[in-house]
Amino acid sequence: MSEERGEEIQNLSNRRFRRRTYLGGLGAALALPASAALLSACNRLSENGGTETKVAGGGISASAEEIIARRKLSPDDVTAALSTYLPSGRLDDYLMFASGGQSGQVLVIGLPSMRLLKLIAVFTPEPWQGYGFSDDTKAVLDEGKVAGRSITWGDTHHPALSETDGDYDGQWLFINDKANSRLAVIDLRDFSTKQIVKNPLLLSNHGGTFVTPNTEYVLEGSQYGVPLGWEYAPITEYKEKYRGMLTCWKFDRQRGRIIPEESFGIEVPPYGQDLADAGKLVSDGWAFWNSFNSEMATGGDMQGKPPLEMGASQRDMDYLHVVNWKKAVDVVKAGKAETIKGFKVIRIPTAVSEGILYLIPEPKSPHGVDVTPKGDYLVVAGKLDPHVTVYSFAKIQQAIQKGNYEKDDFGIPILPFKDCLEAQVEVGLGPLHTQFDDQGYAYTSLFLDSAVSRWSLGKPYRDDGWKAIEKVPVQYNVGHVAAVTGDTVKPLGGFLVALNKWSVDRFANVGPLLPQNLQLLDIAKDHKMRVLYDLPIGNAEPHYAQIIPRERIKAFETYPEVGWNTITQSKDPNGTALGKERIARDGNKVEIWMTSVRSHFTPDLIEVNQGDHIVWHITNTEKARDATHGFALPLYNINLSLEPGKTETVSFVADASGTFPFYCTEFCSALHLEMMGYFLVKPSS
Amino acid sequence: MSEERGEEIQNLSNRRFRRRTYLGGLGAALALPASAALLSACNRLSENGGTETKVAGGGISASAEEIIARRKLSPDDVTAALSTYLPSGRLDDYLMFASGGQSGQVLVIGLPSMRLLKLIAVFTPEPWQGYGFSDDTKAVLDEGKVAGRSITWGDTHHPALSETDGDYDGQWLFINDKANSRLAVIDLRDFSTKQIVKNPLLLSNHGGTFVTPNTEYVLEGSQYGVPLGWEYAPITEYKEKYRGMLTCWKFDRQRGRIIPEESFGIEVPPYGQDLADAGKLVSDGWAFWNSFNSEMATGGDMQGKPPLEMGASQRDMDYLHVVNWKKAVDVVKAGKAETIKGFKVIRIPTAVSEGILYLIPEPKSPHGVDVTPKGDYLVVAGKLDPHVTVYSFAKIQQAIQKGNYEKDDFGIPILPFKDCLEAQVEVGLGPLHTQFDDQGYAYTSLFLDSAVSRWSLGKPYRDDGWKAIEKVPVQYNVGHVAAVTGDTVKPLGGFLVALNKWSVDRFANVGPLLPQNLQLLDIAKDHKMRVLYDLPIGNAEPHYAQIIPRERIKAFETYPEVGWNTITQSKDPNGTALGKERIARDGNKVEIWMTSVRSHFTPDLIEVNQGDHIVWHITNTEKARDATHGFALPLYNINLSLEPGKTETVSFVADASGTFPFYCTEFCSALHLEMMGYFLVKPSS
Repeated sequence: MSEERGEEIQNLSNRRFRRRTYLGGLGAALALPASAALLSACNRLSENGGTETKVAGGGISASAEEIIARRKLSPDDVTAALSTYLPSGRLDDYLMFASGGQSGQVLVIGLPSMRLLKLIAVFTPEPWQGYGFSDDTKAVLDEGKVAGRSITWGDTHHPALSETDGDYDGQWLFINDKANSRLAVIDLRDFSTKQIVKNPLLLSNHGGTFVTPNTEYVLEGSQYGVPLGWEYAPITEYKEKYRGMLTCWKFDRQRGRIIPEESFGIEVPPYGQDLADAGKLVSDGWAFWNSFNSEMATGGDMQGKPPLEMGASQRDMDYLHVVNWKKAVDVVKAGKAETIKGFKVIRIPTAVSEGILYLIPEPKSPHGVDVTPKGDYLVVAGKLDPHVTVYSFAKIQQAIQKGNYEKDDFGIPILPFKDCLEAQVEVGLGPLHTQFDDQGYAYTSLFLDSAVSRWSLGKPYRDDGWKAIEKVPVQYNVGHVAAVTGDTVKPLGGFLVALNKWSVDRFANVGPLLPQNLQLLDIAKDHKMRVLYDLPIGNAEPHYAQIIPRERIKAFETYPEVGWNTITQSKDPNGTALGKERIARDGNKVEIWMTSVRSHFTPDLIEVNQGDHIVWHITNTEKARDATHGFALPLYNINLSLEPGKTETVSFVADASGTFPFYCTEFCSALHLEMMGYFLVKPSS
Repeated sequence: MSEERGEEIQNLSNRRFRRRTYLGGLGAALALPASAALLSACNRLSENGGTETKVAGGGISASAEEIIARRKLSPDDVTAALSTYLPSGRLDDYLMFASGGQSGQVLVIGLPSMRLLKLIAVFTPEPWQGYGFSDDTKAVLDEGKVAGRSITWGDTHHPALSETDGDYDGQWLFINDKANSRLAVIDLRDFSTKQIVKNPLLLSNHGGTFVTPNTEYVLEGSQYGVPLGWEYAPITEYKEKYRGMLTCWKFDRQRGRIIPEESFGIEVPPYGQDLADAGKLVSDGWAFWNSFNSEMATGGDMQGKPPLEMGASQRDMDYLHVVNWKKAVDVVKAGKAETIKGFKVIRIPTAVSEGILYLIPEPKSPHGVDVTPKGDYLVVAGKLDPHVTVYSFAKIQQAIQKGNYEKDDFGIPILPFKDCLEAQVEVGLGPLHTQFDDQGYAYTSLFLDSAVSRWSLGKPYRDDGWKAIEKVPVQYNVGHVAAVTGDTVKPLGGFLVALNKWSVDRFANVGPLLPQNLQLLDIAKDHKMRVLYDLPIGNAEPHYAQIIPRERIKAFETYPEVGWNTITQSKDPNGTALGKERIARDGNKVEIWMTSVRSHFTPDLIEVNQGDHIVWHITNTEKARDATHGFALPLYNINLSLEPGKTETVSFVADASGTFPFYCTEFCSALHLEMMGYFLVKPSS
């Protein structure tokens, strides 16, 4: 190396270290451009942009025309590209919260760009977020234990954004785990999971989560019947002992938690309760669940009986469950619920005698029951019926008033189908689920047709109501659909996403396990529906999603104060300021209060004895947005994510002696690799 | 319900059941459109497309012009949109394999559309793929235990595609876990992880994985020194007892496995070995590792010493490690390696005396060392030096021949910097990592500048060599860059991805933990570089990536035969054909051979006694692409992914009595919800 060059390096290095000292934080200068630098970067981009783009007229450059020709883009392709592309730094208009199916997580996707902005870890530990590795997040996952057993996955199906007056308020998100009948609460201030509750009486759910119009309750419906509490019962006693349950979980918005003690269930027959929706406006106070196995078939395909898919499809009709949840609250308050395994349950006879529970026949094997924006109709989509069936809430109320019901085998009133029916609209094969827009249209997914049907609601929505309008093919086998605020009192229209279950030939071959295909549809009023974009989902299986305007989410950019506990969303008593780091020993308990800042931990050398109980608090003292650090410790299976301001604690027994390098897992600065230290465990012998 | 309507439903239902019977599989007809139906769906799309797109001339419709105006797209935005948009069903040209950082996984992203096609679970259990839930995948994860302890995450940094003659062959992918010094082997026939190996002597790695030009070896470099085997040693004995190691893992392409018994390490000083690259063509047989802490600083910031980021930046120069791995293989074969904890290690003195190991000074705190396509130069990017430093492999060989070296404290020859230097090119602040294209250009990421520099290689690549050409800003703080086959003997150019670590203001606010930003750059020769697309990564922290043309990957569409074991990639002895299902009891062992087909399991009713040992084999007998089923069992924490043809086995003790509904977790048909059964565990008392 020449002397000149050596000097130059030294000067650069000195300059940087001086600047760093000037800025106070040891690593700050080396780390990141300050916002001024960011601005300048943006300016540079603008200056740099535009080169060689000769405008051919109408805003299209000659090079764009060449690209269209070279890439053989059709006029529709061009329209789609221009409708979905987001220039760097421009923000998506909408956020879609999609369940992640058996990944156990929730996906956050921006619209119209259809980019995955975040995966929220819910039921499955996730190290990038440090979820399930810190004491607090382990405790959240432990709330979801089943009979004392850790469950390390979930099957998330139906996210529900919290609502105020029947519209999304952007504060909370709820999600179910179908596999073990659990619910989770996600705080949208930091997009992370704060609570898991386990239903003590069920082992599966599907018709949840759905919230009541002011998020008083989060609704959960069982899917597969079990004896309440899932104790063993022979399958021959299915009708006698197996049951479903509709659970109303009380949500305390101030505490941001579900309160199990103030929650309750309503016992129902083992009819295989399916999707649900809460009433709103005129139907506020009511909730609705489908079912697909009113036959109470139980399979037995190795014993010569038909499998459930056939057994459960014998009758023409299944039952829509109509539930007065507000009255149920009063019944529980009046002490008329039974307590089973510590959980309050309204038994079927009580539900019937109190006028809480009714059934209405519905075309067999339905999936979605969806309440129209004004709360006046219920749309049921039955997978084996080419129609959507529309019930009138007013007619249901009249039928209830009329009385003189038939009853099912469990004594539950069956309201006459004809008396409750408003309309049936033939939409196509395999209708599953329905959403609404701002023009009085409904959109129903057609699983067998692989299409989305647009049809018109009747009065008071449209004069030309209850008519199929058009169908657009999707690729392939669409399950749910989600439109912008499409299940609220104020659907905004514009975009709809078809959550297709199969992608087959849509994407490059990445092996036998294929991504799903989420397709963005333009459903604005001035033209026919059209597919704009195919989004492969190769890390999850989304079922349902909700789409909210971006502005309604008021998330933290960084935590409000340095030393923040993200589970309590308040100051952490173990938050540590720079210069206040320490290590304290009390017998064989060693407690560490550590800080992180670009780019070092303090302390960076820790020596303990084998067998010591370690309680390790780490506070990221950064205040700059995006200045996240991580903390990894080998062998002890620890990885934490430390967003600016966050304090995390991890406790463990240092039972293995050795030399353990810990380090920052987030590429936080140019000297990030040097952000490490040693945890030395002296052997006890 | 009217009689007419009832009849209609009945007819539809009968028709469907008949068709189903006709097709042989009970669920087939209800499940999915056959390929004819898919084709018809495509035709419908074409028919439906094009409506209302009045062409305004030059391939641009009037509505496209309106969109450009309404969305305020600049000419460059339009170019970018048109360059990256992929119409539905058109396949990406390239696949990018990116590490997932502390998520522990690998991401597969399509280019130019920049869509996440798949997440490959590697070090972290992932239920969507059933990874870590079946016996076989649990066994893969268990291979990665550290001193008998399960590690449920990893810190993946540098993926390496297998190579033939120095170019990607699309067969295998290797990836490191920096946090626990492990490596994984991924089979690109099904994009899933087949093996994890734990380095028995190290606890961190970084300079790996890199493969030799014919994938004879997978190279791993330690990062943070520990006593080999990580036994306790006081930090004061850092120089005496702590060591790094460069590990050459033997890969057996036929078996698709790393063979630890045929692998070995080369002991090196605790200099904090960093990134690496293997030589190729003229430099085949050699490999190169950087280091950042030749100061051997050890921090101690609570003891009044400088933190490592300062301590490790005291000297002007660190050391590039130059290793003759082919000679090392011979040395090991000659029995000159020592065996430590069962692993062969060439000690420093042997490495020196055998001419295996040399050092060359390099500007301090370097990150990448990258070998040019012809294998003739090494490009080192030092984070604290605004230049890239180019070494000549020929000059290095001459310097080695010349002899008469200075030596470091460990007796390792230090080749003179000047004698090995070919050129230095000033590229900007914080250069990190370099890739190459087909025009003789190199591309270096600039972390501090938040930019990518394009500069020219000298002869034989270009006559106007060793010159900075241009810089393009990226958003923000770029770590690695990846160009199409950009680290092989035949870089193809065209696209480059900047893997930016921070996104700050680029995306909608999703809370304090921000996505990273992967930006696609157009680097085709006929214009200046430009940023085309911002891809947020909100589920992982990619470090390095490799980009391969799509056609080179020959993945299975479905497994070759029904009853396929995906770990052995051969017929599974417990694969079960339809009609061959059975349950066998042997003492308290119950073995189940189950099949899945749309839409039922056989058997669907299983009763056992509490305490029975269950061995449960499930074969998905589907042959249609994308006909994946899942298998979920509550409380016992089981979820499997059953791609067409796959056989999975899960074993457990049925120690909890009860009624457990199991079900299919993949939305496989219109009667998917009915695809369930009961696992009944009779109480022992």
